[in-house]
Amino acid sequence: MLYDSIIVGGGPAGITAGIYGARYRLKILMITKDFGGQIAKKAVPIENYPGFKEISGLELIQKFKEHLDKFKIDIEMDSVTKIEKNNENFQVLTEKGKKQFESKTVIIASGADPRPLKVPGEKEFVGRGVSYCVTCDAPVFKNKDVAVIGGGNAGFEAAIVLSHWAKKIYILEYGEKVVADIENQELAQKTGKVEIITSAALKEIRGKNFVNSTIYQDRKSGENKMLKVEGVFVEIGLQPASAFANDLVEFNERGEIKVDFETFQTKTPGLFAAGDVNVGKAKQIITACGEGAKAALAVAEYIRQLK
Amino acid sequence: MLYDSIIVGGGPAGITAGIYGARYRLKILMITKDFGGQIAKKAVPIENYPGFKEISGLELIQKFKEHLDKFKIDIEMDSVTKIEKNNENFQVLTEKGKKQFESKTVIIASGADPRPLKVPGEKEFVGRGVSYCVTCDAPVFKNKDVAVIGGGNAGFEAAIVLSHWAKKIYILEYGEKVVADIENQELAQKTGKVEIITSAALKEIRGKNFVNSTIYQDRKSGENKMLKVEGVFVEIGLQPASAFANDLVEFNERGEIKVDFETFQTKTPGLFAAGDVNVGKAKQIITACGEGAKAALAVAEYIRQLK
Repeated sequence: MLYDSIIVGGGPAGITAGIYGARYRLKILMITKDFGGQIAKKAVPIENYPGFKEISGLELIQKFKEHLDKFKIDIEMDSVTKIEKNNENFQVLTEKGKKQFESKTVIIASGADPRPLKVPGEKEFVGRGVSYCVTCDAPVFKNKDVAVIGGGNAGFEAAIVLSHWAKKIYILEYGEKVVADIENQELAQKTGKVEIITSAALKEIRGKNFVNSTIYQDRKSGENKMLKVEGVFVEIGLQPASAFANDLVEFNERGEIKVDFETFQTKTPGLFAAGDVNVGKAKQIITACGEGAKAALAVAEYIRQLK
Repeated sequence: MLYDSIIVGGGPAGITAGIYGARYRLKILMITKDFGGQIAKKAVPIENYPGFKEISGLELIQKFKEHLDKFKIDIEMDSVTKIEKNNENFQVLTEKGKKQFESKTVIIASGADPRPLKVPGEKEFVGRGVSYCVTCDAPVFKNKDVAVIGGGNAGFEAAIVLSHWAKKIYILEYGEKVVADIENQELAQKTGKVEIITSAALKEIRGKNFVNSTIYQDRKSGENKMLKVEGVFVEIGLQPASAFANDLVEFNERGEIKVDFETFQTKTPGLFAAGDVNVGKAKQIITACGEGAKAALAVAEYIRQLK
């Protein structure tokens, strides 16, 4: 089976590409480990996807998935380990199934994963105090003190959600000031539970069976300080899930895939990258959808020209 | 009052820019003659805006408008006649109100209008048989014969809607073959009422009080032919509503505004163009929304750098 296009990823960009590709009667295979991408882990309701004033991440994914299910595309629940291009076509390899699929084009829409801190104790205490998903884990920290690492929007949103359960929330920001939207800063202040510590470089996560403290360096004084917390939520951004694309694409210094912003084609003809995995700055649900649609339209045009 | 941004247009691109701008706490004025842009005139349900499997144009606009109303932005129901940039700021003039508004940035999201045929009889019979809006006018043509000019998706969608009322629908296509999606071609065929005439160059629309016929040239034989129809639906594409932007922007040959596809900024710093008014090819609701969001984020960044 030679597909017209293989879409890698089932988040907003991939799903929109799937809807558009199917409407153009392309033979589509979607390979994804889950649906909804980061939306599924969104801690706060989504208020900026036009058409839905306020909707939870899970509800929005359900609507996206139902929409996709209206169309006939093949779906393989797996991760991709490698993409190659031999002769005219692409070969895409999957991780668990060890299967190989072939297609005329590929749309990489694999999004981004949480960026790890890379400090001692982080790996050891994953699931025992260290978390990358506040929606998943917040209720565990009822009446406990926790730290959120990262003073951007994700960090503040995590703190706002945690305030429903935790007793006290420290936000540790590496820079001299936090960079979250004013709206999020105000909401966090309103909880009365949030303390912001700036110029803080996290050094270590400590504990026994479970996390019991973190060590950070005050970057102004150089002094190491301890915070007694039972939870550490890592919210220092994302890293693109792009490793499998290897030398068919060019990366920027953050590992994001370089694309032409009109067609979302990479340096390899027939290979496209839409959504958070590419170098675009917006990283929004609505912009990922728009890019997925543009990539699918460019795929349709590419295939027309093959004929 | 100096606005952070004036958004010209209230379609998908403008509304999304408004939602994003307001969330970033920018002072926004939207100047628009209506809401929803072309969506309001969509003849068939919308099936490709992710999250809504199938929704009428009017419903989707309502949802967009309700979403926008959640935020505080100023709205001026008017058209824009001119945009100037003196000193650091933009001056935007309105048509009916003859008002002048000032802002640090402008997002042109004024979309596109139906392209006229420019044949004798067209202007004379507007509203008396000649229509640019099948949703608005289809029921008038119950049991009548009509012509749709244009064999693209818009023409086929118009024919499908008209089939609920009209007795017979001719689709006249200038080229040697129609270019609508296969899905639309199949749906039109299923109605049993559609006859496609290719290589047809419309020459004239005739009538007395009301349209009674059209003359087209068969481009293969060179012969002029008459069709007895009481309605002519013009579906030959759109022209960008960009005239007021004059020398602050560069146009392509179709009058579309040239932009940088990452920020949607035009050649004038602080002046952006999102959605169907720019040179982008996609022209979809979801891509217009994505572009509106990207333009608003670029505006927020531009204003941060002014400070």
